[in-house]
Amino acid sequence: MADSPKTPASTPAPSALRDRMRHAMQDEVRVVALRLFAEQGFENTTVGQIAQEAGLSRASFFRYFGAKEDVVLGNTEELGREVAAALAARPDDERPWQALRRAFDVLTRIHEDAPEQAMNFMRLLNQAEPLKARHREKRQQWQPLLVPEISRRLGTDPMPADDPRALALVAAALGCLDAATDTWMACEGGTDLSVILDRAMGALVA
Amino acid sequence: MADSPKTPASTPAPSALRDRMRHAMQDEVRVVALRLFAEQGFENTTVGQIAQEAGLSRASFFRYFGAKEDVVLGNTEELGREVAAALAARPDDERPWQALRRAFDVLTRIHEDAPEQAMNFMRLLNQAEPLKARHREKRQQWQPLLVPEISRRLGTDPMPADDPRALALVAAALGCLDAATDTWMACEGGTDLSVILDRAMGALVA
Repeated sequence: MADSPKTPASTPAPSALRDRMRHAMQDEVRVVALRLFAEQGFENTTVGQIAQEAGLSRASFFRYFGAKEDVVLGNTEELGREVAAALAARPDDERPWQALRRAFDVLTRIHEDAPEQAMNFMRLLNQAEPLKARHREKRQQWQPLLVPEISRRLGTDPMPADDPRALALVAAALGCLDAATDTWMACEGGTDLSVILDRAMGALVA
Repeated sequence: MADSPKTPASTPAPSALRDRMRHAMQDEVRVVALRLFAEQGFENTTVGQIAQEAGLSRASFFRYFGAKEDVVLGNTEELGREVAAALAARPDDERPWQALRRAFDVLTRIHEDAPEQAMNFMRLLNQAEPLKARHREKRQQWQPLLVPEISRRLGTDPMPADDPRALALVAAALGCLDAATDTWMACEGGTDLSVILDRAMGALVA
């Protein structure tokens, strides 16, 4: 990062720095692991191999990841928070469906920045059913992160107990996102995910 | 079924009769089991108890169900086929979203015919996380049952590989269905599921 006169003089808190280094290291290990999984399969790759290729000890690996599964799915929760932050940052007069579409730019950008890595990730999920199921579970947990902001935009916060609209909009949008990524896989990344997601969410106009 | 002059003279094939009796027995055991699960929890209920209360031997129980989980989820696949049949039977000029909504009448009718049983079923899923995950898996398998008919209605069968619309419509509709049943639970069945589902799917107009 280039120093600029606009940068505030105060340095980040040590814990923020530590967090950033931790994330950088996790990202690095993730790239190595996804390549190994793609080459030789998830089941056939050991933690020892991943650690060695990433230049870590096995013990260090477990300082960054709880388990081998976490290398693949460990950032799902964080991604959900990023999508929620992007949703909250959308203009107040944007319709909920459109705001959700734009919040998903966080995800399409990742695909466009590193399509090969994204494709490896998707292939991996499709190859190992328990991993895919676990991913669906974690993705399910994005709902409570997104629903309050949609409720607010609908002007019904708190929602009456029998009003399903915010939850329905979020669940439907996540359904469209799944449909779009499955379709992106089916056409082998030949069309950009953002274009496919526009078509998917455009099939429903809220 | 009353005999009528229009009924063909031939009797149903023995296998059809056997199937019907099998389904009737499974339904009967299911009612007993759901009551026991509701009273004492899924984990705490044994197959032996279910069999005894249903007036069956343990061995007979396993002629009707592969496992205790199947008592709860065993008809999910069949329900999916019923929804798909209802979808195929909708008028050709009905828009896909509306046809999906009407196909789900198969499900809302079950809720309205036996609300207490439906509530027990939902409580059970929410109480036993692995059961809920398994249910999501099985419900996921409804997608391929519904997508071809939606493709046909969109006039794009076969779909180009990069067209996500049929899959998106189905995934979004199933998302709305989940949102509606969760909301039905949250308001303790105080509002009919069909009304809540109208609101959920009405929040998106395709």
